[in-house]
Amino acid sequence: MPKDGVSDPQGEAVRGGLAMLGHAQVSRVRVGRLIELELDAASESAAREAVTRMAEQLLANPVIEQFRIESLVAMKPQGVI
Amino acid sequence: MPKDGVSDPQGEAVRGGLAMLGHAQVSRVRVGRLIELELDAASESAAREAVTRMAEQLLANPVIEQFRIESLVAMKPQGVI
Repeated sequence: MPKDGVSDPQGEAVRGGLAMLGHAQVSRVRVGRLIELELDAASESAAREAVTRMAEQLLANPVIEQFRIESLVAMKPQGVI
Repeated sequence: MPKDGVSDPQGEAVRGGLAMLGHAQVSRVRVGRLIELELDAASESAAREAVTRMAEQLLANPVIEQFRIESLVAMKPQGVI
């Protein structure tokens, strides 16, 4: 998501579009990216550490964006009977 | 998010970039939008109904995208002591 205080012209455009459609009760819109990753990891904490590094290295722009890691869903290995 | 089965070139580009940075354990990346809305509503169910309409009308492209409404956090009215 854009950091608080960073202008979000895309969010403002969406807010204006919603208002034109009759949704004037919307006072604020912020638009960010949602990135779903599937990865192998030894544990949930290892996965969280790896994803944090990915966010810092590539997925987020730390100058203008903040990120959060929302949920980690463990899946069974595939191909194992 | 892009619907399952819809190609996601942005996600594939992110996966390639992560692999080049050494994160080869990532098998799949999907990139969507996260939209945060602040709005007035009489109840949580009314807010959810309104946001569903907004998604169908403007926020999502139903041909290629699916959406979900993740959480609704009630906030106190501002300016009331």
